[in-house]
Amino acid sequence: MAKQSFAEPLSESLQVSELSLQPYPASEKVFIQGSRPDLKVAQRQILLSPTRLADGRQENNPPVRVYDTSGPYTDPDVVIDVKQGLQPLRSGWIEERSDSEILKHFSSAYTRVRDANITLESLRFNLQRSPRRALPGRNVSQLWYARQGIITPEMEYVAWRENLGLSEQQMASVVKQQHRGDALGANIPNFITPEFVRSEIARGRAVIPANINHPETEPMIIGRNFRTKVNANIGNSAVTSSIEEEVEKMVWATRWGADTVMDLSTGDNIHETREWIIRNSPVPIGTVPLYQALEKCGGVAEDLSWELYRDTLIEQAEQGVDYFTIHAGLRLAHIPLTADRVTGIVSRGGSIMAKWCLAHHQENFLYTHFEDICDIMKAYDVCFSLGDGLRPGSIADANDAAQFAELKTLGELTKIAWAHDVQTFVEGPGHVPMHMIRENMELQLEHCQEAPFYTLGPLTTDIAPGYDHFTSGIGAALIGWYGCAMLCYVTPKEHLGLPDKDDVKQGLMAYRIAAHAADLAKGFPAAQLHDNAMSKARFEFRWNDQFNLALDPDTARQYHDETLPKEGHKVAHFCSMCGPKFCSMKISREVQEYAAQQTATDQAMQQKAEEFRQQGSEIYHEVSV
Amino acid sequence: MAKQSFAEPLSESLQVSELSLQPYPASEKVFIQGSRPDLKVAQRQILLSPTRLADGRQENNPPVRVYDTSGPYTDPDVVIDVKQGLQPLRSGWIEERSDSEILKHFSSAYTRVRDANITLESLRFNLQRSPRRALPGRNVSQLWYARQGIITPEMEYVAWRENLGLSEQQMASVVKQQHRGDALGANIPNFITPEFVRSEIARGRAVIPANINHPETEPMIIGRNFRTKVNANIGNSAVTSSIEEEVEKMVWATRWGADTVMDLSTGDNIHETREWIIRNSPVPIGTVPLYQALEKCGGVAEDLSWELYRDTLIEQAEQGVDYFTIHAGLRLAHIPLTADRVTGIVSRGGSIMAKWCLAHHQENFLYTHFEDICDIMKAYDVCFSLGDGLRPGSIADANDAAQFAELKTLGELTKIAWAHDVQTFVEGPGHVPMHMIRENMELQLEHCQEAPFYTLGPLTTDIAPGYDHFTSGIGAALIGWYGCAMLCYVTPKEHLGLPDKDDVKQGLMAYRIAAHAADLAKGFPAAQLHDNAMSKARFEFRWNDQFNLALDPDTARQYHDETLPKEGHKVAHFCSMCGPKFCSMKISREVQEYAAQQTATDQAMQQKAEEFRQQGSEIYHEVSV
Repeated sequence: MAKQSFAEPLSESLQVSELSLQPYPASEKVFIQGSRPDLKVAQRQILLSPTRLADGRQENNPPVRVYDTSGPYTDPDVVIDVKQGLQPLRSGWIEERSDSEILKHFSSAYTRVRDANITLESLRFNLQRSPRRALPGRNVSQLWYARQGIITPEMEYVAWRENLGLSEQQMASVVKQQHRGDALGANIPNFITPEFVRSEIARGRAVIPANINHPETEPMIIGRNFRTKVNANIGNSAVTSSIEEEVEKMVWATRWGADTVMDLSTGDNIHETREWIIRNSPVPIGTVPLYQALEKCGGVAEDLSWELYRDTLIEQAEQGVDYFTIHAGLRLAHIPLTADRVTGIVSRGGSIMAKWCLAHHQENFLYTHFEDICDIMKAYDVCFSLGDGLRPGSIADANDAAQFAELKTLGELTKIAWAHDVQTFVEGPGHVPMHMIRENMELQLEHCQEAPFYTLGPLTTDIAPGYDHFTSGIGAALIGWYGCAMLCYVTPKEHLGLPDKDDVKQGLMAYRIAAHAADLAKGFPAAQLHDNAMSKARFEFRWNDQFNLALDPDTARQYHDETLPKEGHKVAHFCSMCGPKFCSMKISREVQEYAAQQTATDQAMQQKAEEFRQQGSEIYHEVSV
Repeated sequence: MAKQSFAEPLSESLQVSELSLQPYPASEKVFIQGSRPDLKVAQRQILLSPTRLADGRQENNPPVRVYDTSGPYTDPDVVIDVKQGLQPLRSGWIEERSDSEILKHFSSAYTRVRDANITLESLRFNLQRSPRRALPGRNVSQLWYARQGIITPEMEYVAWRENLGLSEQQMASVVKQQHRGDALGANIPNFITPEFVRSEIARGRAVIPANINHPETEPMIIGRNFRTKVNANIGNSAVTSSIEEEVEKMVWATRWGADTVMDLSTGDNIHETREWIIRNSPVPIGTVPLYQALEKCGGVAEDLSWELYRDTLIEQAEQGVDYFTIHAGLRLAHIPLTADRVTGIVSRGGSIMAKWCLAHHQENFLYTHFEDICDIMKAYDVCFSLGDGLRPGSIADANDAAQFAELKTLGELTKIAWAHDVQTFVEGPGHVPMHMIRENMELQLEHCQEAPFYTLGPLTTDIAPGYDHFTSGIGAALIGWYGCAMLCYVTPKEHLGLPDKDDVKQGLMAYRIAAHAADLAKGFPAAQLHDNAMSKARFEFRWNDQFNLALDPDTARQYHDETLPKEGHKVAHFCSMCGPKFCSMKISREVQEYAAQQTATDQAMQQKAEEFRQQGSEIYHEVSV
């Protein structure tokens, strides 16, 4: 295996860029104290300026809570050192369960070879850590605990988090100020309790990706009855990108709203890159172990074997990967179903396994070894993300026989995983025109019995490369509403090139919008809180509040500056679109004051008229409003 | 009325930028010959490179027709001179109907005053033209002709245009290669005939905006049974922008897919700006005459009068404006319904009229004079775009009593306009969460009896200023699918500032995607042709074809160049995302070849086995694929 860049050491001063470390403007971290001292749930709240009333008085606007994926990076009280990694928030919880042990050595042969290679020293994350694994015969998955009736600290954490740390009473008041959603069969309570979280996990309808070797995560939940989540893909390829860039991209992605990050690296040093990413990630990390397994056999799909793959699973599980995409649903018999497609098999993992199956004329070894894989998953609490190797790669191929045959198999595998108490979610398309998206969701709910669905878009048209964050964002918003639990982002570079930092941000903005639009449509409790605060700020010309409340405060402020740069314009009661005379918001306020006066006048007149009439007069004129 | 910039003359060398004049890459204009010599329908087709087959032979890929809004600007055979304006394509058709006359003088008092003002000479479009008006008692609207059973050249033109100039036979074959849509009650034939166009217009279900004073337009149709259209707003405000910028923005907008353009200028010299825009526009132009009327009375809403407004309608109709947004549906009694809104009245026109109504405590004069307005519209064939002055300005205010009360009134006005044989469409929201969009469309279809709906977005969340082209693009795609006929774009600067050229392009890209996604979902004939061509090019690594087929070829190529700039990469059988070894498309092709071989082998084996069995053998082993 020829590796070319071993000699390049990591920059001595490896650190996250200043930009990624800035707190969000006018925001503070608040910590909700849970049921135990070591359970403090980090929340972001945005501070607002007061409303100036017509009579000159001021009325305070309460801070607005927003879901925050950025972890300690945006906390000014935390000193970040990428070489040390993040604090292991969950260590105590994992230890006190006394169902796992610290191993003396890594179990993966590849890890041991890699660790013994002194030429890699300069690339290596510099903290020594030992892997943790379930005690023999034990299952450390959140699903296992949930089914035992145990509410773990992780479950309590996500309950607070989903509620934005609001109390049940606060939530009841907030919910009254939002539209009733159309949840389309989802069952979303107005207040998420730890017990609800447990029951959803026990039912298989939600997962908390939480490898015991990744205690640095702030727990989060994926399921149709919770907030719609977003995943960002990063990763170097053989062609470009470095460890430093990938760590920076991961932090950058969490800043802009990535609930999980998948490291899809396929180039050199992916073992070392992954360690850096995991140690510094406050969100769960997913991978496609097949990519690395293929690297290990020189890129020749036919040379893949169960033994090689198994070692890769263990290698990555002991590093702390929280979920694995596993293409076990692509069966030998499905492959000919793709022969007439316009774009064949477009999933990398899918095409690799298809090639292996055909070369050996054997059933997919991930399918035949699925229960062996379950045994590994439960020893570390790695979630299955059952890969859709036959997802459509074009509008033409949407919802075809190959795709749905695999989906059915994914349903069978879900049941097997659940029988092993392994947390499981299921991947979906791809490229699907709008009117055919719902069928995907409905069949997934049916075949996979409501195991969380995790889709890539889907792209609703093929004609706009360069804008596929948007062609797919439309599909993502729709399928999120229909019940999809997590949306895998697509960047503007999709189909064209490798995303840089700005592409990552653009992809995330599109997908945060899609996820939030879905939450509004589902009627998720408190989702509209953020919209309402923005709308009130808008109506009251509180420009700075509008920028601070924006999903992307930097861009909002910059766009306003382009036309009206002066500080005075940030309190102006007009904007550049209409100029001072024409502002509809301004006129509209005058109308409200007018209407209020008018109503008062009308009431007075009506009263006068009433008196007049009671006095026997016949000249009463009805007053219309 | 103090005007400040009269002294600034237009640049001597006023012209459209080179960028706006370039033909699209690898594209050519073709002209479909209609039923008469002067009816030639301009079409764009994209030329593709051949497919290289595995055996070394080449297979041609036919050119791909795409709907083209750019008019003569992208035709290398036409010399563009902004000072001369475009050729009046429809003049002969209008003249030969012999139902209109050329006036000696403009009928508007304001126009005459303005024309007599020598200080404006330097700003003025330099061609003298005389206005045209219907002969007394005549109606020159396409609706009137349609109801008389007359198929106008305009109707025939749009039939060809909607079909991309394909023959009925070609269309039948194309339709077989696309998904059956879910038209949700729309009635879209597989081939659009001129008679179908006529019948849809006669029914009021579609309009062709085609003022007889704007003969420069290439006719286009707006209706739920046709391609979903997109409008781009341009216009200067008191704060910024010049005539030159606005003309350039109009041309730029048509380049990137604007089917119509609204000139929403509110600043100085809007009469002169409008003349430049109309004379150079190949697409219909819409305005909100109220904005100019308000300018004429110094911005004081209370001083507006029917006489002033009427003169403005005539002024603009004789310049050639193709549709007017008229806020006649906002009635006095609706205004108090807005008092408890989070964002009050956000439509500029709506807030102006509300202020007028309250100040005078009188019914909206646009409502009381609606039939007088009809008389003006039919004398020039200006379409009504019935304005939604009470559209919601926030998620919180969506679908409220005020909004739907006005919609009902718009339905009543539609009937009155139809009784006058005036073409009419209806404006819609605004800000609406996804699950409440459909109700808007259904109520509009019901109240307005399928008169075309024309919506602004709607924005599906309020939390992302800076990205409202996207928050609204999601809503636009949905409502387009549900039956909305034209989508008014929103730019990234919405709520923040005045859009520049790049914002116009970003807004249009988002909305072209939304409109196309809607057409795919509706199953509009030949909509998927473009997607299929892209997907085939993608599968065959024809990179240059992918760029040329892209909605935005420049950006697609540029993104690819960022990672793989060399010319050799444009024929490479891999891309930067996966590198040479991992490309799923490449592997997938190998899989197809493998599967084909396998099938052949299996067939051969099966045949052998069959022979063997027929010979009485018992050792037959079934061959599985």
